[in-house]
Amino acid sequence: MLDPLSTTFSALADPTRRAILARLTVGEASVTELARPFDMSLPSICKHLKVLEAAGLIARRRDGQWRPRRLEMAPLHQVADWVQYYRQFWEHDFDRPHELPALNQGQGKYRHKQVHK
Amino acid sequence: MLDPLSTTFSALADPTRRAILARLTVGEASVTELARPFDMSLPSICKHLKVLEAAGLIARRRDGQWRPRRLEMAPLHQVADWVQYYRQFWEHDFDRPHELPALNQGQGKYRHKQVHK
Repeated sequence: MLDPLSTTFSALADPTRRAILARLTVGEASVTELARPFDMSLPSICKHLKVLEAAGLIARRRDGQWRPRRLEMAPLHQVADWVQYYRQFWEHDFDRPHELPALNQGQGKYRHKQVHK
Repeated sequence: MLDPLSTTFSALADPTRRAILARLTVGEASVTELARPFDMSLPSICKHLKVLEAAGLIARRRDGQWRPRRLEMAPLHQVADWVQYYRQFWEHDFDRPHELPALNQGQGKYRHKQVHK
């Protein structure tokens, strides 16, 4: 079983699933509505929705016959938090990343990486 | 064949591979050095390194007998750019994205979302 962040990354590793998430930013939608822009069968779309739901990236609610899916932000927030750590390396051009707190896992014998833009 | 962003997400969907990337922020390292913190055989580590290399997340250079791996930022930059779009939704505390202005869930065409910062 994958850890939550791995599950999220795995779910995001597909352009159709990412397009579904983008579509859901404009509002919740039924499976039929979600399938419409794609040249794909309903079962195929449902398979993608299952992956997204298992990753907690979408949720569904019941509204009579309508079971709209909506976007869930929490896993995307975690992705943003994860990548945020790396942002500093391209934004600040650190010459001495080994001086970052809690990063030195060895005995200081690793050479520095010089990060240049 | 996966698109570049899918390849990146797929490569990131593993805690060992993410730990290797974190390790490489403190400087380039040999396979042996990269394997050290993990209870894992060298061939297993090499498999992970291959996935990271195929995704462009690491690169290697030749330095005599030493072939250190270093972190490559470009794919992580793309991940940050991708997730940046979603950031606005949790930063503005949109609980109900379907209530965003100018949203239409109905008639087959999806209107553009109005994004306000």
